[in-house]
Amino acid sequence: MLYSEMNKDQLLQEKKELKKRYDAFKARGLQLDMSRGKPGKDQLDLSTGIYDVKNYIADGLDVRNYGMLDGIPSCKKLFADLLDVDAKNVIIGPNASLTLMFDYICQCYTHGAGDTPWCRLDEVKFLCPVPGYDRHFTICEHFGIKMINVPMTDEGPDMDAVEELVKDKNVKGMFCVPKYSNPQGITYSDETVKRIAALKPAAKDFRIIWDNAYFIHDLTDNGDELLNIFDVLPKYNNEDMVIEVCSTSKITFPGAGVSALIASDDNIASIKKRLNAQTISYDKMNQHRHVQFFGNADGVREHMRKHASILKPKFDIVLKHLDDELSGKGIASWVEPNGGYFISLDVMEGCAKRTGELCREAGVTLTTVGATYPYGIDPHDSNIRIAPSFPPVAELDVAAELLCICVRLACVEKLLG
Amino acid sequence: MLYSEMNKDQLLQEKKELKKRYDAFKARGLQLDMSRGKPGKDQLDLSTGIYDVKNYIADGLDVRNYGMLDGIPSCKKLFADLLDVDAKNVIIGPNASLTLMFDYICQCYTHGAGDTPWCRLDEVKFLCPVPGYDRHFTICEHFGIKMINVPMTDEGPDMDAVEELVKDKNVKGMFCVPKYSNPQGITYSDETVKRIAALKPAAKDFRIIWDNAYFIHDLTDNGDELLNIFDVLPKYNNEDMVIEVCSTSKITFPGAGVSALIASDDNIASIKKRLNAQTISYDKMNQHRHVQFFGNADGVREHMRKHASILKPKFDIVLKHLDDELSGKGIASWVEPNGGYFISLDVMEGCAKRTGELCREAGVTLTTVGATYPYGIDPHDSNIRIAPSFPPVAELDVAAELLCICVRLACVEKLLG
Repeated sequence: MLYSEMNKDQLLQEKKELKKRYDAFKARGLQLDMSRGKPGKDQLDLSTGIYDVKNYIADGLDVRNYGMLDGIPSCKKLFADLLDVDAKNVIIGPNASLTLMFDYICQCYTHGAGDTPWCRLDEVKFLCPVPGYDRHFTICEHFGIKMINVPMTDEGPDMDAVEELVKDKNVKGMFCVPKYSNPQGITYSDETVKRIAALKPAAKDFRIIWDNAYFIHDLTDNGDELLNIFDVLPKYNNEDMVIEVCSTSKITFPGAGVSALIASDDNIASIKKRLNAQTISYDKMNQHRHVQFFGNADGVREHMRKHASILKPKFDIVLKHLDDELSGKGIASWVEPNGGYFISLDVMEGCAKRTGELCREAGVTLTTVGATYPYGIDPHDSNIRIAPSFPPVAELDVAAELLCICVRLACVEKLLG
Repeated sequence: MLYSEMNKDQLLQEKKELKKRYDAFKARGLQLDMSRGKPGKDQLDLSTGIYDVKNYIADGLDVRNYGMLDGIPSCKKLFADLLDVDAKNVIIGPNASLTLMFDYICQCYTHGAGDTPWCRLDEVKFLCPVPGYDRHFTICEHFGIKMINVPMTDEGPDMDAVEELVKDKNVKGMFCVPKYSNPQGITYSDETVKRIAALKPAAKDFRIIWDNAYFIHDLTDNGDELLNIFDVLPKYNNEDMVIEVCSTSKITFPGAGVSALIASDDNIASIKKRLNAQTISYDKMNQHRHVQFFGNADGVREHMRKHASILKPKFDIVLKHLDDELSGKGIASWVEPNGGYFISLDVMEGCAKRTGELCREAGVTLTTVGATYPYGIDPHDSNIRIAPSFPPVAELDVAAELLCICVRLACVEKLLG
């Protein structure tokens, strides 16, 4: 029955039953965490063999020593093959693609992406598809970049809105997670990718950070297909508009992986100019270790099927509870993703924060409610990001049921006013 | 005999003899490189055992996963012990301390070290003790920081000059390599360190980058002692003035080491605030690997004695040739360093570039002459940086002799006008 159709007595009865279940959970003194997209231990163990790699000659050079600023050729080739781009357009970065993004935005701030460094401008704005990734927002906040929410559709960012907003010359860029978006797990449609590639922003130095964090992170053998934007950009002379990044944080190790940046010839040149002042090279032994461990792109793809077999049951158990407890009540909606690390749950307006509180009080930590929006402000107080990867299935089973109870309780409370 | 006391005939005779020796070297088609401070293969092999470390639990946490922004506690402790500071004042960085320096200067540029971001100022100046390290100069150039030469004495930078120059409020900082300076191998005297710690710059946000690259890189058992500036700074309420960095680039691997930054509580807090937007953590597995390999600070010190035993004969062969060929002629001077990676040779004014040319034509590559000065301009065209670490002793034997011949030839040519 839809909650909106319940009368007061029905709501009070519902509340009573939920409260009973909630208190029973609370009494168990749980300590469960569904807050961060961390791989579980069994996932990390898949890559332990990487540390058997001890040889240090790559492409004829001793990777232990100085040199090779933009990465060893074999590692550039590995990422080029995985992302279907030219190796000359790849720079291998440090262990976190976050650093590649921060450093690139920083470079735009200090030196610009065109004529004028962004620090010389009175205002710089970025478009942020919402809900989105909090660490993108943190980068914008760090540099005083004003964030403008753009709603997500089931095909990606609302492109009508984007096309309108880029007419403002102060709008200098956009953050995108084009495949298995964080947190919704939405993959941009071909049409969306084409419209993005065809943008004609007023700002000639408009830059899209194409954070392809989950480019190969399917949960099933029938994962989503993302159009390669670098195949489309040249048609519109927009090659310089996109900076793509990715990493092996969720392929090998979050704390000890390798990242990569893909960009046009001109962007690669300007980034390498900055890199030449910033480092002598990133850790090349780690690059080499990754290449040796995987062998080639197919080796990475095969490896990802092992991750999927660990992750799929975790997503399934959460989705089962959402379906069992929340469907048909008109109080919540969610997308069943084919990959990525999150399930995004939208609850009745004004109920997300309260849900988070109820969960916390009963021992389940969620991603801070609001964090999926710029400045931590979800205007509808509606979005909850669920990260099922880290806890074991048995814990998720408990945490997800409790979460659903909390959602229902929060909504009943809201309707009771 | 002093070249300056030779008459024209004597100079011509000298030139003839040198030319004969030079041509004989040239005919050998040599390809020798004394340009960069790269460790040799035998040095890198000292640390190969680090890759036997495969366990991944440090301080009770799985270092393969996310977290621990500022480094694992055991690695912070290792550097704290080595540098005699508190672990709370240490941040473990990426593989290159150059990145820590670049990123800190960048932070000052974008956000400031006090009230005003440096990018908002019309002019920012830095003091650069000369000769110095070209990559420091590159960072300054990248951010448009105007560099002011400060002469080095055998006790460190000319402190009379420094104390005068910091009265200019646009002078915002100074780069120092306080132990075994690059390239001269001079260690700052206690008096110099105290005068630096006691500076009262007009700029409240004056910052000294204390690049302690060779903090433990002695060539003998009687290495130089550098006063710990962090012990002196509090006396003058100047704790925030110094940012110290170092790394294991020349302890384990230039391409796969670990760096560290040491700073006051307030500076650590402001750097961590930026880091929180820039990364999730640096590579913690590599930090853990280093801790496990060395065990403790004494383990590092013991390891450095092995480096010394490889490096000392290389320095000795170069110094022998300098002494044999150049002493008593009044055309060159050099410091015999107790550590570090370089020998700095000052030749007769106006003869360094020509020496470099002659060397190159005969197959010996030197560090680009001029590179030891800001903007690549050595005002006296006098300084040559010799990097003896990479070539085997037999090659150095040849290269150093040839270098001396080139110095003498260049000076004779100059005197002949």
